Amino acid sequence: MDRAAPPDAIRDILAAAAAPGVLSLAGGLPAPDSFPLTELVTVLDEVMSSAAAAALQYGPVEGVPAMRAGLAARAGETGGHTDPDRVLVTSGSQQGLALTTNALVAPGDTVALEDPGYLGAVRVFRQAGADLLAVPGDEDGMDTEALAGRLRRGARCRLVYVVPHFHNPTAAVLTEERRRHLAELAGHYGFLIVEDDPYADLAFDGVRLPSIDAFSDRVIRLLSLSKTLCPGFRVAGLVAPPALIGPLTTAKQDADLQTNTFGQHVVSRLLSRPGFLPRHLLRLQSLYRTRAGHLAGLLGGLGWLTFRAPRGGLFFWAAITTAGVDAATLTAAAIEEGLAIVPGPPFCIDRDGSRHLRLSFATLSPSEMPEAVRRLELARARVSGPRGAAAAG
Amino acid sequence: MDRAAPPDAIRDILAAAAAPGVLSLAGGLPAPDSFPLTELVTVLDEVMSSAAAAALQYGPVEGVPAMRAGLAARAGETGGHTDPDRVLVTSGSQQGLALTTNALVAPGDTVALEDPGYLGAVRVFRQAGADLLAVPGDEDGMDTEALAGRLRRGARCRLVYVVPHFHNPTAAVLTEERRRHLAELAGHYGFLIVEDDPYADLAFDGVRLPSIDAFSDRVIRLLSLSKTLCPGFRVAGLVAPPALIGPLTTAKQDADLQTNTFGQHVVSRLLSRPGFLPRHLLRLQSLYRTRAGHLAGLLGGLGWLTFRAPRGGLFFWAAITTAGVDAATLTAAAIEEGLAIVPGPPFCIDRDGSRHLRLSFATLSPSEMPEAVRRLELARARVSGPRGAAAAG
Repeated sequence: MDRAAPPDAIRDILAAAAAPGVLSLAGGLPAPDSFPLTELVTVLDEVMSSAAAAALQYGPVEGVPAMRAGLAARAGETGGHTDPDRVLVTSGSQQGLALTTNALVAPGDTVALEDPGYLGAVRVFRQAGADLLAVPGDEDGMDTEALAGRLRRGARCRLVYVVPHFHNPTAAVLTEERRRHLAELAGHYGFLIVEDDPYADLAFDGVRLPSIDAFSDRVIRLLSLSKTLCPGFRVAGLVAPPALIGPLTTAKQDADLQTNTFGQHVVSRLLSRPGFLPRHLLRLQSLYRTRAGHLAGLLGGLGWLTFRAPRGGLFFWAAITTAGVDAATLTAAAIEEGLAIVPGPPFCIDRDGSRHLRLSFATLSPSEMPEAVRRLELARARVSGPRGAAAAG
Repeated sequence: MDRAAPPDAIRDILAAAAAPGVLSLAGGLPAPDSFPLTELVTVLDEVMSSAAAAALQYGPVEGVPAMRAGLAARAGETGGHTDPDRVLVTSGSQQGLALTTNALVAPGDTVALEDPGYLGAVRVFRQAGADLLAVPGDEDGMDTEALAGRLRRGARCRLVYVVPHFHNPTAAVLTEERRRHLAELAGHYGFLIVEDDPYADLAFDGVRLPSIDAFSDRVIRLLSLSKTLCPGFRVAGLVAPPALIGPLTTAKQDADLQTNTFGQHVVSRLLSRPGFLPRHLLRLQSLYRTRAGHLAGLLGGLGWLTFRAPRGGLFFWAAITTAGVDAATLTAAAIEEGLAIVPGPPFCIDRDGSRHLRLSFATLSPSEMPEAVRRLELARARVSGPRGAAAAG
């Protein structure tokens, strides 16, 4: 459904979003128009005609060699470690996060993350009995000075979790300076960094910053392909320091033995097709740039939402400026109007998200967006009365 | 690699088995000749031409509706509950086992299982901090009278884990009487039964006994398709009592969000093709019956192994009758000769497996078997000297 999210509140919203006639700005569903269908048909033919026996059989716990190599090559595009022996293929990045947490976080350990943050991660950390350290962020991502201050005053972390490109939900990009600072803090205070980077390929200008793994030996990098290619194969990977790959592989074996071999064969062939990936990414970036621009224009026209126009990713993080309109109430009213949106509070740890919405520009086509925004305005009118009603009445 | 197994000793053996030139009687790899290639090509075309946008997208945590319905229908073939709302799609049965254990077993809880037993399960139970209660078995499967005796004397279990058809490693089939007895004990003593049944479709005569779920409301049934269709899609499911489906679905969401949508579309379509499954199972059963018969003849000819000829499944559980030949030593010698086999001890909890081997008849073709058995004899000769050497010399 949504890499981004579901605590139960969001699960309910996503269920509502799937109902007939409902338009959704809620989910983190990539645009189906972005899926590389033609190339996939070719690759499926190749797999079935030349590698079926292997692709349909069990494979190694750590992943099919071509898939590990493909992920290592992708990792190399933004710097950091590229040895395929450091790669573990996982069933989505969510599994990478779960395995990392289960293998490395003990009850009572502290995990730091940006507030607001990806609540799928928060659920996993809480499940493991971790204490959460909420670190504020701004348009440059996690405020590493604030983290450093907490550490100087005695806080200790086992893990620091970051979504460095087009953060969910804020769409912030962690600056290179802060990436280096975080790496330095990890070395100094001995914590591990989980770098979860599913949106890096969705930079509208194609520019990605270096991985934190380029600056530190203490990084576990989660490499998703769900937004880059499509979510349906559930093939992702992680890159980890050599000392951690053993325990993570054992955890993977216990969890599900291995990621589906068929998907690994398909995805690794797709990634290695000459010229495919750069061409595909250009198309993807152009598609999402157009959608974001379109939705930004429509939302801006409402006059009661403020937001920074994102430079990539899938989401707007928009603040409600009308007095008395609360995000949860607005969300409930929007569902009545046939529109699914996500309110801020489920993403928040310490801060108040009650005046924020997360709005995805990825799922609807530009032609559906005016109607979605019309419904959003109707929902607001339900909640606060039509604008200017007092003056007019 | 092997649904059956790997503690590290077995992982090493399976790695050795994959080396060029090595013949393997070790792994639980289904025969590639058994994969339904023609039908898969047709189904892949269907999925890409008529359902690509859905098959490549995220899907529900609990599984794609058609897949849940397909698994429910399969469950109904051997009795028990068939409501699709009781089905959770999992990434292999190993994941069903891991989710069940993580959601339901607390440190210090007792889990009972047959000794010898599937060590992939033992690893998961131990990882959860469970105490193991080893229950003896015989050619009729787990000795439920022995379990009842332990319970009468005060033992309490949270779970009882059984592999009721063609048990791994012993190939025993739990009788219907014992299935009913186990169900009765579960009701009386309040434990849950995990019925892990990946080999049920591999009965040489096509006869399967009723599921324990037909006799009890306390069963979590693991439905694998890896041996029935092929392992490569990693699509399986579990059927659980209504009160447990919620916690298991939440555990699934935290673990990996969902099982790969593409595989669910392919496998559910394959299962629902008119006439496909009965025809496929006949072919499968004939193929394995032939292989088992062939290997039984060759192993019987050695004169130093005794075993019950299996009626299905993938494995022989063979006892070494030559004095002084130990299974681990023989396994090491066999690798030297280019043959992978699995010794008994990794499957054993309390009992002594040092005189047993688990030998798979599934992976090698009949034409490769004579050479494999020749190497086994060479390995034995290395370990104990050629037979009759003293008399001849």
